[in-house]
Parts: sequence; structure tokens; C-alpha cells
Amino acid sequence: MSYDKSLIKELEHRAAKIRLLSLQTTAEAGSGHPTSCCSCADILSALFFKVMRYDPKNPASDLNDRFILSKGHAAPALYAAWSEAGYLEEKELFTLRKMGSRIEGHPMPSLPFVDIATGSLGQGLAVGVGIAVQQKKVVKNSSRTFVLMGDGEAAEGSVWEAFSLAANLNLDNLIAIIDVNRLGQSRETMHGHDIQVYARKAKAFGWEAIVVDDGHDLNQVLEALERAVKVNGKPVCVIAKTLKGGGLPQIADKDNWHGKPIMPGQGLEEAVQEVSKHIMQAPPAPVIAKPESVSFKKITGPINNVEPAPYKKGEKVATRQAVAPALLNLGKSDSRVWVIDGDTQNSTYSQKFGEQYPERFVECFIAEQNMAGVSAGLASRGLIPFAVTFGAFLARAFDQIRMAALSGLGVKFIGTHAGISIGEDGASQMALEDLASFATLPNGAVLYPSDAVSAYNCIVTLAKHNGPGYVRLSRPASEVIYNSNEEFPLGDLKVVKESSSPAITIVTAGVIVHEVLKALKNVAAADKIQVVDLYCVKPFPKDRLTELVKASGGKIVVFEEHSPNGGIGAETARNLAGAITSFKHFAVDSVPRSGTPDELLSSFGLSAEKISETLNSLL
Amino acid sequence: MSYDKSLIKELEHRAAKIRLLSLQTTAEAGSGHPTSCCSCADILSALFFKVMRYDPKNPASDLNDRFILSKGHAAPALYAAWSEAGYLEEKELFTLRKMGSRIEGHPMPSLPFVDIATGSLGQGLAVGVGIAVQQKKVVKNSSRTFVLMGDGEAAEGSVWEAFSLAANLNLDNLIAIIDVNRLGQSRETMHGHDIQVYARKAKAFGWEAIVVDDGHDLNQVLEALERAVKVNGKPVCVIAKTLKGGGLPQIADKDNWHGKPIMPGQGLEEAVQEVSKHIMQAPPAPVIAKPESVSFKKITGPINNVEPAPYKKGEKVATRQAVAPALLNLGKSDSRVWVIDGDTQNSTYSQKFGEQYPERFVECFIAEQNMAGVSAGLASRGLIPFAVTFGAFLARAFDQIRMAALSGLGVKFIGTHAGISIGEDGASQMALEDLASFATLPNGAVLYPSDAVSAYNCIVTLAKHNGPGYVRLSRPASEVIYNSNEEFPLGDLKVVKESSSPAITIVTAGVIVHEVLKALKNVAAADKIQVVDLYCVKPFPKDRLTELVKASGGKIVVFEEHSPNGGIGAETARNLAGAITSFKHFAVDSVPRSGTPDELLSSFGLSAEKISETLNSLL
Repeated sequence: MSYDKSLIKELEHRAAKIRLLSLQTTAEAGSGHPTSCCSCADILSALFFKVMRYDPKNPASDLNDRFILSKGHAAPALYAAWSEAGYLEEKELFTLRKMGSRIEGHPMPSLPFVDIATGSLGQGLAVGVGIAVQQKKVVKNSSRTFVLMGDGEAAEGSVWEAFSLAANLNLDNLIAIIDVNRLGQSRETMHGHDIQVYARKAKAFGWEAIVVDDGHDLNQVLEALERAVKVNGKPVCVIAKTLKGGGLPQIADKDNWHGKPIMPGQGLEEAVQEVSKHIMQAPPAPVIAKPESVSFKKITGPINNVEPAPYKKGEKVATRQAVAPALLNLGKSDSRVWVIDGDTQNSTYSQKFGEQYPERFVECFIAEQNMAGVSAGLASRGLIPFAVTFGAFLARAFDQIRMAALSGLGVKFIGTHAGISIGEDGASQMALEDLASFATLPNGAVLYPSDAVSAYNCIVTLAKHNGPGYVRLSRPASEVIYNSNEEFPLGDLKVVKESSSPAITIVTAGVIVHEVLKALKNVAAADKIQVVDLYCVKPFPKDRLTELVKASGGKIVVFEEHSPNGGIGAETARNLAGAITSFKHFAVDSVPRSGTPDELLSSFGLSAEKISETLNSLL
Repeated sequence: MSYDKSLIKELEHRAAKIRLLSLQTTAEAGSGHPTSCCSCADILSALFFKVMRYDPKNPASDLNDRFILSKGHAAPALYAAWSEAGYLEEKELFTLRKMGSRIEGHPMPSLPFVDIATGSLGQGLAVGVGIAVQQKKVVKNSSRTFVLMGDGEAAEGSVWEAFSLAANLNLDNLIAIIDVNRLGQSRETMHGHDIQVYARKAKAFGWEAIVVDDGHDLNQVLEALERAVKVNGKPVCVIAKTLKGGGLPQIADKDNWHGKPIMPGQGLEEAVQEVSKHIMQAPPAPVIAKPESVSFKKITGPINNVEPAPYKKGEKVATRQAVAPALLNLGKSDSRVWVIDGDTQNSTYSQKFGEQYPERFVECFIAEQNMAGVSAGLASRGLIPFAVTFGAFLARAFDQIRMAALSGLGVKFIGTHAGISIGEDGASQMALEDLASFATLPNGAVLYPSDAVSAYNCIVTLAKHNGPGYVRLSRPASEVIYNSNEEFPLGDLKVVKESSSPAITIVTAGVIVHEVLKALKNVAAADKIQVVDLYCVKPFPKDRLTELVKASGGKIVVFEEHSPNGGIGAETARNLAGAITSFKHFAVDSVPRSGTPDELLSSFGLSAEKISETLNSLL
């Protein structure tokens, strides 16, 4: 097929501008990836100035086609495209990589056209799945999501999780483009320039695949993209053979040009001259297709009017069971609440939500990276997704969780079956590192309730938190110890056993709270012990706990079913350092085995019996 | 094809025994996954009693075909197979899931036939890739590696990373078997009983694919497996359609039987009766093919005679540059040392090793889960693999790292480009959570050197450590401050600035050591400050640091380029709680941006200038 020559000439001009600005801004910055920008310059030109429908004055709009640069190191090309589209001024592009600029080394969502921070490769497609789902289920216009990937990142398994799920969900509004420039960072990629192998993989995963023999020929690129957006019933992958440094004859397809600016006196002048050949003296203003306008009203603001927890003091309920009513009632109060499963919905009790609100429930099957990526995509569009699985398996998605948090997205995670109290299934199923991981997330909330009421309310608290976070839940049934109207705000704690003259403050959480309360019945000097339920690990209730601990002369004993590193003991010690005079810490400090919950708790000094022995020896 | 009837009858007997023991032991335990055992009983029978070549008296032997049960929840079937093979006594099987037993809920390497703990799904194949590589490159006999996967876990991206790499390495000694029993934990899998879709995926990923229409027909299963082991030049995937609970007509292929024992009075008797129909009264002793014997001598014991670090005091060298000589010299001293790359070898300096020892270098491309899985496979066979990439990207493999550590495997990780001092590339490339993650590993070592000499020696120390571990390295060049013969043992620290009357102890590490030393030149009361280079974060040098801190009246200031959670500040506070009277902590407590290293360090109070301001205000 052949397009109108003036159109192609204009798109060549835009591609040349993208190349030129990528070259100049990285040279100005003294670092960056201009060759990775040049391989996708023509693809970006075709997308931004012919195929995509968006409002360049309102890049954040849900009505727009969305674009994700999964190969985040080509950020300068993205910035250049938005400058050509009229949203950014060229001079701002020259603040690339400078302190304080939003024109960062890799795309960050401080720019309204960036939905997710990219730069850890292979993550964009799952995020695109989440956004494409939001377009179909929430916006309901004809908008599409385009994800531009590098060929190198197609080696990441996360990419194939997303391929699987997108086909399973029939997301024909999702278009992935693989920029096959052959060269990774250190060497040729696994498949080099064999674009057919990517096509075979995509087809086997249920996608339509369209190959482009020359990804620098705008006729070919445009034809492929225009075919792609017309496909119905399945997602489409466009696989374009390109050259790293395409358009720069001195450098194109050569080794050792990854992640290097082309500096003045070292090729920049020649490259600029070459690229400038395609620049029009008087280019027409870009004609950008408008998105379809629909009566879509975006919900904002906090979640309100959530029903109280449906539990009474004295009942025996596992904290994980509170997932069902908490998510159901949140979903009833606010249609932004979604639930993402990884084939554990019957154990995590997220199943009920899926039955009640199937249109807001995404089954990711056994693919935790997808769970996190899809959740990030939904959150980037203002929804409130809860990804729920065993706490142990969230470790599988930690890089995605990290990137979502760096993006400032309010993705919520619930991890069930935490700690050794799961018993017989053994170490592989026990989350023992989850608090350490989640506590590192900037602006993250980490909640660790001890009964069904606090579990319910912690989930509600997390839903209302404007940021990422985690609720850690347990398998065994525990007694409900709080009134259903008790609130569990961030940054606080509960004193579950007071003492008028405390000699020791016990800090604990989760099921161990109950072991401690039981233990106290066999402690002679129990009246000298106060017990803190540290349901909020982050933000840490520093002032309140400091005050309590001072009252006990700075003496603390911590009991927790987590690694000694990075859990409630570590956070207590760090936040109260200076106020502590004595610190005893019982945690899971070696590899646990299969056994009954009681046997396991006992083997780490965390059973009621062992706790009472410890306390009697201390007092 | 039709096999000898007596052979099939015997294999049906073995399959029946596997079913019977799986039913009985899970009923005895009161928990477990008998239906998942039954779907693969016939496959296990064919493998263990006809196809595989191994010495049942020496299950750990490198000469054996190796077997990995990636679907670890079918552990009782694995135990039953080894009991039928004569290695385990049946009565031990009845200790399943009981405290102290090695017959755990999911397979653990305390059993010599278990190379890797499984139970977090989708991890077995990458480990199998590592073992298959060891067989080809080290053992050099005709041994094969068999990996039995569930269909549900084929949704995990890690599986497809391993598929890619195995084909790239032409591992025709690797046979994956997918037990397509249709049912996941909570619902039907994505592809149900469509075995052809798995075949298409496997073929697109460069594998031979063989489908088995009835995975309970031993003629079909045997024929497929015998075809599989004859394929040359590429790995083979056998895809068998089975029924969850296959062989138990009352339960087979029914929902809601995942992870549930069939208890007496609730179907056990009928199931046992059904299964027992295939049990022979006088079965022949199993005839197990012997592995090919080769003159393979396994190296054991510590690494010796590593050359000293090739650096002189005063040189300016980035700690990451020490990767090249350290790995080269380790590789020269001991052929067990391998290096695993994820397409960052030119930035991490692991490239030199690959040039010198290409046969001990595995390029995983951009697939960090593969890096960890392959490393675990190599380590399970007694090798000493170093997986080297940017510290930030190791977050991608944290679940695999966790499982390798639970397995007690000595997998070594090196993470470069840690912290904000990488500068312009921005937050996505900055490891800020790595210390928190790695410190949770049982028996793990976590090292964080400050100059090229300590980096070199920390890598050597980690190589000699009998367990997993991590070395955190930095991008910027720093002055060499240690003599090349200085030792850096686990569990110690260095005092880089002494004070005869200390009022403050500074605890720091990595590039911040140099910022602190520079800062002291502008601190009036510098003589009252002692500075600790905490190069070993785990095991923590508790006694020595306590003594030092007591000398400074318990006053500590920590400077680190890591999240405040779980890093050296948190570990210092936890280990020294009670000995600390004052604790100031400067860390990376919000999302960093692009900027120069100096600007970034300054923005978090970690530059020499800011540090001297802080210290002057304190003294």
C-alpha cells in the first residue's frame, strides 16, 4: 500500500524531529540512549501523528488513546513526540536528566502523558492490559492502548504473562509494537533480526501478529499500524525490524552504542546533518485525530460510607476471611474498587467480590507479575485495585510493585497465609519477608491486623490511603477482640493489655497478639506487662509507642512471625532507637518446616507456652 | 505403538501404588493435594520405572537423570515414587507434614533427590535449565533432566523465560512434561484441556512438542517420553491431557478438590478400592536403568589460593569494576565458579569472565528470574554461580532468590548501580530496597563494600560462604582506602576513622563512606567522631559495633543511600537496641529524581557538604 506522499513526507519530518531532539538533548545531558530513540522514531511518528487519537492539550484524558513506552530508556524520543504534538516546549526538553526537571532519564508520571514509570524492562504490557480493560469496561469509548516494547525486553517472562492474559480477555483495543533493533545493552538479543520468531510467539499466545520488514519505511509502518487497529476480537502485535541508531548511517546497527550520547566532535554534527535532511522548512501543523467523546464522568475523592465490620467480639474468624466483606462493601460504596486474583480466590476470600462484581474482577491466573502490572494500569486511570494472593507469592511481583510505588500509584495488595502459622504446607508457602519488602515503598502503608474486625478496617483504611500499600493476613481463626466500630487509622496502634505500672512493653501483631494474651494468663507478674498490637507497621506510630515504652523504662519484647530483618522488630528498634534500654526479639530466624501451627510457633518461641516461659524468666 | 503387556501392567501397578500412598499419607496428615498427585501418577510411573536412568540408592548422584517436581504440591506422589524405587521406606511416607519429618508438605532439599524447594509455582524449569547445562558442560555423560510442571503454572512468565533460554542453549537433554489436568486451585485454567495451545507455545519458543491425548494411558505416556528422549538439538515438551484426581472416578475432573485430602468416611475407602484394582499381588522388583558412568570427579571444599586484589591505595576505581578481577581470579582458582549474566555484562564488568571462561558463562538475556533459577540449578549440583546485574533488577527475581535460600543453596548475587549515586538515569534504575530484601534470606550474607579492594575481597568472601548472599556495588569511582591484603570476613566491620574520645559513631557504607571522610575535613570537632565502614550488613558485627558505640556514649549517626527501611540503619538499630542513646538516620526516604550524583546525595543529606553541616550541628 502507498500513502499520500505529502503525508509520508510530514511523518518523515516528525520522525526526523524526534531523532534530532533525542540527539541534541542527550548530548546536552551528557548521557542517555539516543540510538534506542532512533530505532523507534518512525514508529512514534506514525503513532503520534496519524494513528493515535488524543487531545494533545489534555494528555491525561481517559478519552485519549493511551501510549506506554515500555522501553523506557527511549524517553527522549517520547518527550520529543509530545513536543511535536504541541504539549511540551522544545526548550523544556533540554532540561533532560537535570535536577528538578520532570524530563527525567526514564519516564515518570509527573508528566501527565506517562501512566507508569518505565525503565525496568518488560513491565509496560501488563500495565497496558490494565488500561485496555479500563477503556473497555469503564470509559467505554473506542480508545485503544499502544505499548511500545524493545526486542530485548521480550525475554522477560512478565511480557508473556501479559500476552496470555490479553488474549484471554480478547483485548482488541490493545496494540503492542516490538521495536526489533537487534541489539541489547551488551550484545545481540536472543533472536537478532528474526522478526518471524516474535510473530510465531505472539500467534501461539493468541494474538494477531503483523510484521514490518523495514520499521524505518513509514509507508510500511503506517500500513501495519492501520491494519492493527482494525483487528477485532484479539490483541495485535506489530513486529518491526529496525536498526539501533536507525537514520544515523555512521552508527546504525553497530555494537557498543547502547546508552551513549553522541557528543559534539564525536559524531553529533554528522548525525544532525544526516537527520536534518528530512526536516521540512515550513512543516504543516500536526493534524491529530480527536478521541471519541462519551459521557464518561470520572469519580474522584475519598471512599465514603463503608459499612462497619460484620463481626462480634468473641467470634473465631481468620483475618483472611475479612477480605470477603471488606472488598464487597468497598465495592458497593465505590465503583472504583476492583479486585485482581491470581487463582487463589477461594483461599483468599476474594471470590465473593468476583461473584458480585464480575465486571470489576480480573482473573490473572497464576501470574503475580500480571496481577501487579494490571493493577498498576487500573490505578493509573484512577481506579482502586486490590491484588489479593498468598503473601509469599507477592515476592514474585516485587519489581512491579516497586515500579508502581515509584509511580505514586495507589495499588493495594493483600497477602494472606503469612508466616509460620499456616503450618503443614511448609516454608515455600509462608510469607516471611513481606513486611520487609513492602515497608520500603515510598509513601506505602503496611498494615498487619490481628482479628477480623481490624482486618476489615485495615482493608478499608488502605482503600482510602492515597498511595500504595499492603495488608498482611493470616490463615488461622482468631478471636475477635475489637468492637466492630473501632477505627484503625494509619500511623497508630492499639494497647490490648494495659498496665498501671509497666515494666515491659510487648510489641506484636497478627495471630501472635492472641498467643501473647493467652500467655499472660500463666505469667505471675502479668500486671507489669503492657501489650501493643502494632497493626500499622508503616507509617510507624513512633510518638505513641515511644511514650508507652518510656513508661516501661524502655524495656521491649517483640514477638513476630516474620524474618527478624525488616519486620516489626526492626521497625520498632529503628523508630524508637534511643528510647530503648532493653530489647528482646523473637522471630523466624531460620528455615521453618512442615508441622502444626502450634509446633511451629513453639519452635520459634512464639507459642503462648513459650511466650509465658520467656516472660516469667524476664520478670 | 504398543508395549509389552507385562511392562504396562507393572507400570500401572507402580502408578496405583503412587496413587494409593498419596491418598493414604494425605489422609493421615489431614491435609495435602492427593488429586494433584493422581493426575501425574502415570507420568511418574513411566518416568521412574522405565524412562529415567538413575541409581535409586544414590539419589543425589550427578550421574543420574535428574527430576524436578515443579508442581511441588504433588510432593506425596514424588515421595511414593522414591518409595517404590526403594529409596524411602513406606512407613516414613506416613510422617508426611509432621513436625521434624523430612517428608514435608512441599519438597525440600533435605531429601537427597530434591534439588530445589518447589511450591512457589513456575520455578522448576529454569532450575532444570541450570542442571541440564551442568550435565552437558560438567558431568558430560548422557544424563537428562526431567521437569514435571502443572498446567496452571504455565501462566507464570518465569516458565517462558526458561523455555526461551533452553531453546537458545539447544538443551536436548531437558524434557519438560506438562500435566494438563485442567483445574487450577480455584477454577479452570486459562486453556482448560486444550493441549494443542501448549504445543503451539512450546514450538513457537523453539521446542519440540509431543502431545499425549490420554495421560493416564501408559502406552501413550511411555511412547511420548521415549520419543522425547531421542530428540536431538532441542529441548522437548511433553504435554499430557490428564484428569485432576485421575484414577478416582468419583472425584476425577471435578471442581473443589484442590488441596484437600480425601478422608476416611468421605470417599477414601472407595478411592482406595478403585486404585487397588491395579495393584499386583506379587509385583516384580523394579528394573531401573543405570546412568552412564563417566570419570567425573566432583570438586568439594572451600575455594583456595585466590590472588589478592589488584588495586593500590589512592587509585580511583568504582566498586563495580572489581567484579572483573574478582570473578576472573575466583574462576582461575576454582572451576566451580560460574557467572550468569542478564545482558548487563558490560556495565557490571562480568564480561571479562565470559571472555576468559565462555564454558562457565551463561547469558540469560534480559530475564532475571532465569538468572536466579539457572543459578539455583547450578548451585544444586555443587557449583558456585554468581548472578550479576543491576541491583534494582534483582527485585524481579526475589521469589526465586527466596526459594533458593530456603533450599540452602549457595547462590551468589552481585547487584551493581545501587542507590541514588547512579545519578541521571533516575529512580527506576536505583536499587533502594536490595539490602532489605537480601537481609531476610536465612543464612544469607549481605556485603556492601566501599572501595575496590573491599569489593574484590567481599566477592571472594561471598564465594567462600556456604550459603546464599549478595554484594552491593556502586557506579561512581571512589578512592581505594584499603591495602590489597586487607581481609573482609563475614560478621565484621572496619573503623575508617578512629577517635580517642569519641562523642559520635558514624555508621555508613559504600560510596557514602567517602562522603563522610570528606565531610570530616570541614567539621570542627572531627576528633570526636569515629567512622565505621559497615561492609558486612549480615551477619551483623553486633559485638564489635556495640563496643564502639558504647565508647561514644551510645550516640550514632547513620548515613546510607537505601530506603530507611531494612537497610544499615534499621539493622544497626535492631542489633544495638538498648546500647543506643541517640540515633540520627539519613537515608533515601522519598522517590529520587534524575540529577547528578552530587545533587542527589545532597538532596537526601548524604553529600559531604550536607554531612558536615549535620555533624557541626550535632557537636
